[in-house]
Amino acid sequence: MDATYDAWAGPTVGDLGELAVLDRIVRRLPAGTPVLGPGDDCAVVSAPDGRFVVTTDMMVHGPDFRWAWSSPEDVGWKAVATNLSDVAAMGAVPTGLVIALAAPQGTPVAVLESFADGVRVAVDALAPTCGVVGGDLSTSATFTVSVTAFGDLEGRAPVVRSGARPGDVLAVSGELGAAARGLTRLFREGVDEHGEPSRAAAVASGADGDPDVARQRRPVPPIADGPLAAGAGATAMLDLSDGLAIDAGRLARASGVTLSLEADLDDIALHGGEDHGLLATFPADSALPGGFRRIGVVRDRSEAYLVHGTTPVPTTGWDPYADWDGAAG
Amino acid sequence: MDATYDAWAGPTVGDLGELAVLDRIVRRLPAGTPVLGPGDDCAVVSAPDGRFVVTTDMMVHGPDFRWAWSSPEDVGWKAVATNLSDVAAMGAVPTGLVIALAAPQGTPVAVLESFADGVRVAVDALAPTCGVVGGDLSTSATFTVSVTAFGDLEGRAPVVRSGARPGDVLAVSGELGAAARGLTRLFREGVDEHGEPSRAAAVASGADGDPDVARQRRPVPPIADGPLAAGAGATAMLDLSDGLAIDAGRLARASGVTLSLEADLDDIALHGGEDHGLLATFPADSALPGGFRRIGVVRDRSEAYLVHGTTPVPTTGWDPYADWDGAAG
Repeated sequence: MDATYDAWAGPTVGDLGELAVLDRIVRRLPAGTPVLGPGDDCAVVSAPDGRFVVTTDMMVHGPDFRWAWSSPEDVGWKAVATNLSDVAAMGAVPTGLVIALAAPQGTPVAVLESFADGVRVAVDALAPTCGVVGGDLSTSATFTVSVTAFGDLEGRAPVVRSGARPGDVLAVSGELGAAARGLTRLFREGVDEHGEPSRAAAVASGADGDPDVARQRRPVPPIADGPLAAGAGATAMLDLSDGLAIDAGRLARASGVTLSLEADLDDIALHGGEDHGLLATFPADSALPGGFRRIGVVRDRSEAYLVHGTTPVPTTGWDPYADWDGAAG
Repeated sequence: MDATYDAWAGPTVGDLGELAVLDRIVRRLPAGTPVLGPGDDCAVVSAPDGRFVVTTDMMVHGPDFRWAWSSPEDVGWKAVATNLSDVAAMGAVPTGLVIALAAPQGTPVAVLESFADGVRVAVDALAPTCGVVGGDLSTSATFTVSVTAFGDLEGRAPVVRSGARPGDVLAVSGELGAAARGLTRLFREGVDEHGEPSRAAAVASGADGDPDVARQRRPVPPIADGPLAAGAGATAMLDLSDGLAIDAGRLARASGVTLSLEADLDDIALHGGEDHGLLATFPADSALPGGFRRIGVVRDRSEAYLVHGTTPVPTTGWDPYADWDGAAG
């Protein structure tokens, strides 16, 4: 059993007050190497390229995660990983993060400490030269994390969604389907008799130890492959957040092309989300960099944006959270 | 009566779905002039200085604002103004904003449209060359806004809190006390018989039309005075978010000096927060720029960080929300 679940005990945010809580969190976070770190009204971050890329993503208890299925460290990891993935998808190297967090007054301080540990281990594993340069701590009835991530393009053009050209190779880096398989298993086996998320049920069923469930909790986006792809001449790229088919449809629509799959992919690899791999197109004669593998080609636009042979593939995703009310669990 | 209160009607976020809502919001936001705007995994923002300043601040329904007292446009304005003020306090010129917003499914889309209008009118009024370069829209049981703002230092050193030196002049730009007077009146007159925030009570009492209440809802930080102060050689600066006395204490502590007030300031000017003026120190012979006016001098550190003549001034703020539970109203 993940020891960080034990964070749900001890003095609360309300007991200690904002300054004392901040002090205990900040020391656990990776500092990175900002020009100027916390302590003033703003941090100052280097932008050697004269531009910077920026993305922001909010994770809300209820619709985006449930404490019954994720430890505080898992949530810290995932908040970082999903944002770093967007930076990588532009071909940029992550340079900094700011994190705003709002927690109910009754949240144990140990939960926020474990969250900070999750941020640190994710940065260490995924983008070790990056760090948390600033943040904000608030109170809310709903546990909410908002991460904003920055990256440097190192003089290269940003890799956008609209640059794919007929004849390019379609390639993917990272796992396909693992996170969705994990979530499917949690929805099937990690619930109580009312269908509500249950940690006890997840443990009893063995779902808790499933490597696919681990990928759902802690996705491992191939961050370094983003700048590698840009360096190798990638013509278009995006992060696979909602599923290969829907995200491929976005790239095809933005580029005005049709993507033709050669690989045989099962439904969950095609339509399952939250893997945070990278989908990119490269000129036909490119050597694919890093973990990229060929899965298809770019064609002139036809009626469907995505096809397998001559068969259209629906560019739809799959959102098992869609009907959740954002309150319970 | 502010017409934007009427936004609480019509189709909801849940009725329309994320994409349709986003489409209706984005067109109302100020675009600014990013290198690359929305539509990819990241925006790209210019950083001509080779560095950028960044700040983030979350506003949560309950602890930070109440719909009974603020219109959606007010909340959009305030979320922008408070972040721009932090950028200005470094001596930087605002260059961009990203906004993450989470709303309950039952929130009328018109509320988010009015929020976006508030963002636009605040940017137009306070930093017209700035714009919203990216964002994220989520669902939450608690209405939550997280803004991250960027700025360019134009080749100057960032103005930090720690640079004040004995002999410097202490000066302030912007109003003192108006926002706190407004909030005091709302707490006194804008509540129902149970002490809960009530729009009807605010209107009936006349509090709704009070210019101080307007300042509480829509602070007007002197954004242009930040870069002016930096250009005039300001040795230290910060944003007055929690009140002159507590923020002056922070500047004095960071600089290792004592600040001696010459001006006669009443309690609410000293201890009331949320005006978002700028407090700065300048070399003794400086011509004070923009709206800055002299209120004291910097002395060698003595026992108290802040004094008036020989009398210590408590470096405490005032938080009327402190005991709120972050849920009701």
